[in-house]
Amino acid sequence: MDSGRIRKLLEKVKSGALPVDEALHGLRALPYDDCGYAKLDVHRSIRTGFPEVVFCQGKTCEQAVEIVKRLAGHHAKVLATRVAPDVAERIAAAVAGCTYHDTPRLLVVDRPVKKAQKAARKGKYVIVLCAGTADLPVAEEAAITAESMGSRVERAYDVGVAGLHRLLDQKERIMRANVLIVVAGMEGALPSVVGGMVSCQVIAVPTSVGYGASFGGLAALLAMLNSCVAGVAVMNIDNGFGAGYFAHLVNR
Amino acid sequence: MDSGRIRKLLEKVKSGALPVDEALHGLRALPYDDCGYAKLDVHRSIRTGFPEVVFCQGKTCEQAVEIVKRLAGHHAKVLATRVAPDVAERIAAAVAGCTYHDTPRLLVVDRPVKKAQKAARKGKYVIVLCAGTADLPVAEEAAITAESMGSRVERAYDVGVAGLHRLLDQKERIMRANVLIVVAGMEGALPSVVGGMVSCQVIAVPTSVGYGASFGGLAALLAMLNSCVAGVAVMNIDNGFGAGYFAHLVNR
Amino acid sequence: MDSGRIRKLLEKVKSGALPVDEALHGLRALPYDDCGYAKLDVHRSIRTGFPEVVFCQGKTCEQAVEIVKRLAGHHAKVLATRVAPDVAERIAAAVAGCTYHDTPRLLVVDRPVKKAQKAARKGKYVIVLCAGTADLPVAEEAAITAESMGSRVERAYDVGVAGLHRLLDQKERIMRANVLIVVAGMEGALPSVVGGMVSCQVIAVPTSVGYGASFGGLAALLAMLNSCVAGVAVMNIDNGFGAGYFAHLVNR
Amino acid sequence: MDSGRIRKLLEKVKSGALPVDEALHGLRALPYDDCGYAKLDVHRSIRTGFPEVVFCQGKTCEQAVEIVKRLAGHHAKVLATRVAPDVAERIAAAVAGCTYHDTPRLLVVDRPVKKAQKAARKGKYVIVLCAGTADLPVAEEAAITAESMGSRVERAYDVGVAGLHRLLDQKERIMRANVLIVVAGMEGALPSVVGGMVSCQVIAVPTSVGYGASFGGLAALLAMLNSCVAGVAVMNIDNGFGAGYFAHLVNR
Amino acid sequence: MDSGRIRKLLEKVKSGALPVDEALHGLRALPYDDCGYAKLDVHRSIRTGFPEVVFCQGKTCEQAVEIVKRLAGHHAKVLATRVAPDVAERIAAAVAGCTYHDTPRLLVVDRPVKKAQKAARKGKYVIVLCAGTADLPVAEEAAITAESMGSRVERAYDVGVAGLHRLLDQKERIMRANVLIVVAGMEGALPSVVGGMVSCQVIAVPTSVGYGASFGGLAALLAMLNSCVAGVAVMNIDNGFGAGYFAHLVNR
Amino acid sequence: MDSGRIRKLLEKVKSGALPVDEALHGLRALPYDDCGYAKLDVHRSIRTGFPEVVFCQGKTCEQAVEIVKRLAGHHAKVLATRVAPDVAERIAAAVAGCTYHDTPRLLVVDRPVKKAQKAARKGKYVIVLCAGTADLPVAEEAAITAESMGSRVERAYDVGVAGLHRLLDQKERIMRANVLIVVAGMEGALPSVVGGMVSCQVIAVPTSVGYGASFGGLAALLAMLNSCVAGVAVMNIDNGFGAGYFAHLVNR
Amino acid sequence: MDSGRIRKLLEKVKSGALPVDEALHGLRALPYDDCGYAKLDVHRSIRTGFPEVVFCQGKTCEQAVEIVKRLAGHHAKVLATRVAPDVAERIAAAVAGCTYHDTPRLLVVDRPVKKAQKAARKGKYVIVLCAGTADLPVAEEAAITAESMGSRVERAYDVGVAGLHRLLDQKERIMRANVLIVVAGMEGALPSVVGGMVSCQVIAVPTSVGYGASFGGLAALLAMLNSCVAGVAVMNIDNGFGAGYFAHLVNR
Amino acid sequence: MDSGRIRKLLEKVKSGALPVDEALHGLRALPYDDCGYAKLDVHRSIRTGFPEVVFCQGKTCEQAVEIVKRLAGHHAKVLATRVAPDVAERIAAAVAGCTYHDTPRLLVVDRPVKKAQKAARKGKYVIVLCAGTADLPVAEEAAITAESMGSRVERAYDVGVAGLHRLLDQKERIMRANVLIVVAGMEGALPSVVGGMVSCQVIAVPTSVGYGASFGGLAALLAMLNSCVAGVAVMNIDNGFGAGYFAHLVNR
Repeated sequence: MDSGRIRKLLEKVKSGALPVDEALHGLRALPYDDCGYAKLDVHRSIRTGFPEVVFCQGKTCEQAVEIVKRLAGHHAKVLATRVAPDVAERIAAAVAGCTYHDTPRLLVVDRPVKKAQKAARKGKYVIVLCAGTADLPVAEEAAITAESMGSRVERAYDVGVAGLHRLLDQKERIMRANVLIVVAGMEGALPSVVGGMVSCQVIAVPTSVGYGASFGGLAALLAMLNSCVAGVAVMNIDNGFGAGYFAHLVNR
Repeated sequence: MDSGRIRKLLEKVKSGALPVDEALHGLRALPYDDCGYAKLDVHRSIRTGFPEVVFCQGKTCEQAVEIVKRLAGHHAKVLATRVAPDVAERIAAAVAGCTYHDTPRLLVVDRPVKKAQKAARKGKYVIVLCAGTADLPVAEEAAITAESMGSRVERAYDVGVAGLHRLLDQKERIMRANVLIVVAGMEGALPSVVGGMVSCQVIAVPTSVGYGASFGGLAALLAMLNSCVAGVAVMNIDNGFGAGYFAHLVNR
Repeated sequence: MDSGRIRKLLEKVKSGALPVDEALHGLRALPYDDCGYAKLDVHRSIRTGFPEVVFCQGKTCEQAVEIVKRLAGHHAKVLATRVAPDVAERIAAAVAGCTYHDTPRLLVVDRPVKKAQKAARKGKYVIVLCAGTADLPVAEEAAITAESMGSRVERAYDVGVAGLHRLLDQKERIMRANVLIVVAGMEGALPSVVGGMVSCQVIAVPTSVGYGASFGGLAALLAMLNSCVAGVAVMNIDNGFGAGYFAHLVNR
Repeated sequence: MDSGRIRKLLEKVKSGALPVDEALHGLRALPYDDCGYAKLDVHRSIRTGFPEVVFCQGKTCEQAVEIVKRLAGHHAKVLATRVAPDVAERIAAAVAGCTYHDTPRLLVVDRPVKKAQKAARKGKYVIVLCAGTADLPVAEEAAITAESMGSRVERAYDVGVAGLHRLLDQKERIMRANVLIVVAGMEGALPSVVGGMVSCQVIAVPTSVGYGASFGGLAALLAMLNSCVAGVAVMNIDNGFGAGYFAHLVNR
Repeated sequence: MDSGRIRKLLEKVKSGALPVDEALHGLRALPYDDCGYAKLDVHRSIRTGFPEVVFCQGKTCEQAVEIVKRLAGHHAKVLATRVAPDVAERIAAAVAGCTYHDTPRLLVVDRPVKKAQKAARKGKYVIVLCAGTADLPVAEEAAITAESMGSRVERAYDVGVAGLHRLLDQKERIMRANVLIVVAGMEGALPSVVGGMVSCQVIAVPTSVGYGASFGGLAALLAMLNSCVAGVAVMNIDNGFGAGYFAHLVNR
Repeated sequence: MDSGRIRKLLEKVKSGALPVDEALHGLRALPYDDCGYAKLDVHRSIRTGFPEVVFCQGKTCEQAVEIVKRLAGHHAKVLATRVAPDVAERIAAAVAGCTYHDTPRLLVVDRPVKKAQKAARKGKYVIVLCAGTADLPVAEEAAITAESMGSRVERAYDVGVAGLHRLLDQKERIMRANVLIVVAGMEGALPSVVGGMVSCQVIAVPTSVGYGASFGGLAALLAMLNSCVAGVAVMNIDNGFGAGYFAHLVNR
Repeated sequence: MDSGRIRKLLEKVKSGALPVDEALHGLRALPYDDCGYAKLDVHRSIRTGFPEVVFCQGKTCEQAVEIVKRLAGHHAKVLATRVAPDVAERIAAAVAGCTYHDTPRLLVVDRPVKKAQKAARKGKYVIVLCAGTADLPVAEEAAITAESMGSRVERAYDVGVAGLHRLLDQKERIMRANVLIVVAGMEGALPSVVGGMVSCQVIAVPTSVGYGASFGGLAALLAMLNSCVAGVAVMNIDNGFGAGYFAHLVNR
Repeated sequence: MDSGRIRKLLEKVKSGALPVDEALHGLRALPYDDCGYAKLDVHRSIRTGFPEVVFCQGKTCEQAVEIVKRLAGHHAKVLATRVAPDVAERIAAAVAGCTYHDTPRLLVVDRPVKKAQKAARKGKYVIVLCAGTADLPVAEEAAITAESMGSRVERAYDVGVAGLHRLLDQKERIMRANVLIVVAGMEGALPSVVGGMVSCQVIAVPTSVGYGASFGGLAALLAMLNSCVAGVAVMNIDNGFGAGYFAHLVNR
């Protein structure tokens, strides 16, 4: 709670315009919506610039529907991640304006993404790269998150290091980007290679794509953390949403 | 076996009131109920203050039913954890006075929990905090365990560190508690933050909520073990029961 | 900041006894002592009941001396852990009333421990058990911490599970304790065995004692986290201080 | 191939009783039965004292049936481990004299176990202990393996360290045993406690029973490897068969 | 190699101004300085906006001196990280304009840092937070790196979550920052707590500060990767340099 | 892009045979086939001697079919690995000349394997060894991969170290091989034993066969990496394809 | 405490030969020698057949000397493991009859090992195998332990699987042994290979010999736990003492 | 022992030219030189094409000197790896013709390397790449090993992926190589990038270069095992010798 608001309140108390009890109450007002099992942080968009995002994994269907419904009552735009298709259907039935993206299992409320994409065709952009086709769900989670927050997003998929010419062919689009999201599983080498080509930040996202000694994405995660290139920061395994969010903060 | 009992027995032997063979038998009497695949520790309530608790995971349905039935023959109150819904149904059919809590998959025998809760509304209390909605099953396992043992329990759910004001708003209830249970998955930061605010003990319970580099709760577990705050002790991942039990011991 | 203090302050502002600017300042006063590289939490003893403890590992000698000196200016009692002998010597030269315990490398300022121990000979006590002689440094860190905070402490050392009779011989002292600290390295079995004998809490401390597959205490840590006995909570590897602190909270 | 056999062969060659080509063939004769995807080591019973045992996990149903059938053609007794119920049924239809034990999923061919058990009621015995009811499948795999090899086997189940009196009550049977198999999951403390009571070997078998930080039996495995008691050796997680086999070697 | 340069070259070839062999050579020209054991990427400042940085760990003293000397011949500013004091002395003797920062073991060539800091006192800034005094070397590595690249940098040290008021007291400076670097060891909770308070990016740096189950920084690393707050990206353990570099890219 | 092609192109430009714009286009031509979610590296067979191989795990059925179809349009031979039976059926319906091997789940397009095998009966050969029957799927993946690339392949299955005579009996075939692939799960000892017998390279492939402390093939992987025999190199767990590919490169 | 002794005592009480208080004392007599930081289990030789062994790692020099001295007062033979040379010297100065073996850092008190070895030249023997020269310290720890307990011990060193003929050459000695100890680092393959050749038990000891992915002996440990051969049990990494002790129990 | 030799021997026995006892002896003759703690496999050069290599780590100085001396008595060329400088000096004093390479700590006996290198300037070659200057010791171990075995070796050092142009500049030399050794620490991305450019095998060697989450080379090891490029096989961390040996086998 910032000092400006405290000063105003104190001055009202001094002038008698505000009784002590009300002032006390005002200083402790609840900036969230409590539905028992969840306290919706409706104050977050003021504090951090974007509404609370609903992480649906581990929540019951009922909880997910209720939480999205309540947030949609406070905000024009709501984002829900890791939404199973049947839960998405239930939310769409209860809340108007839903778009469900099934590859990244992402649900966006009251958000004509395509129009936004058109509007965002010009200006600074985020570019999302991914190493292989199996990394698509994570890459799309990142791309649509950034788009739904308002960023222009470009995509360059299946540009893994096994065929460098596919990557080098995208070099100009990559070098003109304002910020990069690089998604890769297996050995996770792509961020290092790309990072050496550009002067902007690289947000690296390891995926759980692979088998054997990939240990659910651990190999890619460690590789990215140990990147010999400066300017690379790393997200949790499969955290496309986080990368899209972070990239938008840089890009806006 | 304590020396008081040995002395009495020896004196009876000396006086001839007890034949040697009977004394020998008495010194070796079985304080448990043996049903072959399990030896029920019916002596435990005398020794540790609470009957043996039935951990149902890994037991067959038949074994679970039989064990609960036998314990219910010895004790007025029986607790069974990790009970699948169908097993709970089978137990309820065989044993009178069962209440099944489906969120934490906990079964309490012969225990009018609600009445106990009313009685316990006053006095020292345990408070159970959890970081997110997905941590509820573990938090409820802790809360109901402590309640069914006789403690007054308060709850403050979804108060994770991402929105500190939600937590700070509960500050008074938290600071007045006699002991805290703090349940969190993902990065497991909540116990450290809460621990710096209070003068009582914090029992931290990591949950397996998360994905990728949470490695089934390992990230939260390590974070809690490394808490920079003194006064924090840690339970196994998802061990809500253990936390409720430990908290009751402090609170009684 | 609790509402009681806010209410008083607001009433003074209303009555004109306190100018707005001073009230604002009062609401934002620094309850810590800033020496650049460290912000000493001198407010902590009010908040959590005990002064901030100085963890010396990773601090330069100069920093350790300065921090202990400053805290000793605010509090009658200061505790510093993981103090190397040469650093202890430097602190003792700069601050009056130091006692240095070299087995646990613990430094206590202005605190006649022996007298306190005498005074604490009666009443509720913490008992510290350790499995082997090599666990002594951690056990003593726990014992002296609890003592210097004001608890009566008993010790029962080298009572590992390999010779159960050594442990069973201490049974009465153990069962009469108010809270147990159980310190063990290697397979870390002692807390489970002890936990089945008592009705109070067990604070388990794994140590890094061992070799090979003990992996620096990991084996003992995992064993304790997986204890089949209810009523056991676990500290970080070698964290004797934390156990002593937690035990005192229970015991006071 | 031992020198005695070579000498005989060479003497036959010298005397002309054996042509060089036949001798060469004899020196290279196949002491196994080749069915393409498997080379059955029918020579093993001569070499190691017991026929090859069929580990069915990872084999197709067809392969399992064929292998057991072929081995049963060479030996009076065949043991198959990790046999799924439907595979057991298929084997029983194809091979005479099968007994299937469903708890340990073990199949014994041409072996009247009960009669053997009766015969083995006297003399030196293996005792199998397990900590909890959920450890039964592994304990029974060990017990039946040793029995089917010819050892007398005693059982003492659910004697975990949480209620020491249950264990101590079995002390005489345990101390009279020739060799111990101790099966435990969770913290795996039982072998250390038992090992301190006896003068014979303890074969410790960690099980995957547990959750959270038990990491599929890793916690119990590490605990057993780090046992502070001499005379304990460890098997792979859930390897009841191996323990039974090893114990029989000691016991015979 | 960008298409603009290829086009120009092709046009010169067409016009005959450039012989084919020379054009071929030009297309393959070496944009680095080769000293045998190292190929100095002198082209990097054009490509990525900053000269190659010398990571001195694992290099012999001779190699470090030679590499810094050669880079200083190409660039006005050179940065060397993980420089041991004696190596720094040797470099300073060989290259003019060195400043050595001993806490982060960082060497900056030809760079009046204090003047730059003065100039950068106004405008957008990076703020570096650290949880404890022992995290200072990593925090300073981050701060000086960003400063030497040209960013204004603020510092707020020892603001760990154990005493939230120390952190909240810095709230205004933190909220006004353009980008945050948050450095923490042990449980690594600080980035999550800070991340919930701000609308800008948080670059989280785990440190190896801690003991026991911190496993050399692994606990903090996992905590940060699993942050429940959006807008957090993570660097390798102790990688202050990388954080400073990344933050400057965002800030410029 | 090799210098020979650049020289030719430059000479055409010089002679005026090629306009600058076309030359520019030619230098940047796409040597891949882009189907949105995948960029097929149709240039790879020129660069690395074999067409791109389709790794089907993690791809949707639609993607797998489309990618194989497109590659089959460019190349006479296509290899797809980790193909589920139903996906294989869909591909076979869409592309002519498919052979599906169900044990290794490998699909080969337009490739009469048996004829090739016949042709390859003579000359240098790869030999594939596996330790047990459960390792067959990986061993066959290796064998068929090498065969479909054109190598003669021999097989020696179920020759694990538990019965050395089964292995020694194959000694001549093994010693005459040009390169060995050794596939083993569990303790992964076979490559070390075989490696000491031969003068050629051993390509070791750990499999996920095993249970408990095999940790999904980790035990075998570590064993092979630590082989005390020189001349052993290791593939990822279960990577039969990679071993077959590598072996063919050595053998051709 | 066995029932035979209780019965005798009870009968003495009954006959009046033993007063109640003395009987009580007798039932609780301390079967250990308490020197404060250690409780010497002088009763162990009766209970388990061999005196307590002193594990010197982690004990101060003073503690080690005192403990050995006290045990030597109770027993004719004392074994101390992991004894640093300077500690051994100190013990030898204080206790008569010490022999120090510097390769395994083992100290034996009052024990003419060579004479015992001569006496033990005939009859059943333990054979100790090791894979390489660097495994010698662990192998010798095992061998001397078994010898000093009274077993005949044979040695076959440097018989690793890389040169099978070195191992096969020892086949007769190995096959005639009563029990095997097999010591190996790196990939730890030796126990599996040897185990397939013999009909007796194999006690496998992984060593920390190796580098890189041996991870301090973890690779060898996992390999041995996953041995495909029945009849293999495993000790902790570098635990030669434990293997020697276990082997003697089998051999006696 | 191959059948050709057996046949000859048998024929001599048949003809009476060889007495049975001598034949038996011949069949069991020791193809190694036994010096107690080591059995030197002097037969290996016949069996595998190269003399036994002495791995000096973990051996005492005396053992290393003796072993090299004995091998030098059997072979014209001896290789010793991981030789500390002082041990190298001792060996050089005892054995004629030593060359010691201090960067890779490799000792070669009786081997004019430079002359060999000259001779090997033409023809097929191995190329050794390394990512950074700190990887040099491992890279040189690989290069000198292959050279001393007789291969022509090229070097391309410091060509890490952070500056792709440095790598691409070596493309022709790389593509013309017969086999590649690629050495890299940190994220270990180089083998994947190089592997996509060539049609020959890549032998990838992870190094322990790095810090934090590199975990002693684990990150690089996992990355290389998960390479998305076919034709890559992996060695143990820092195993330059193994890579050089394997590469020579391919190259000869």
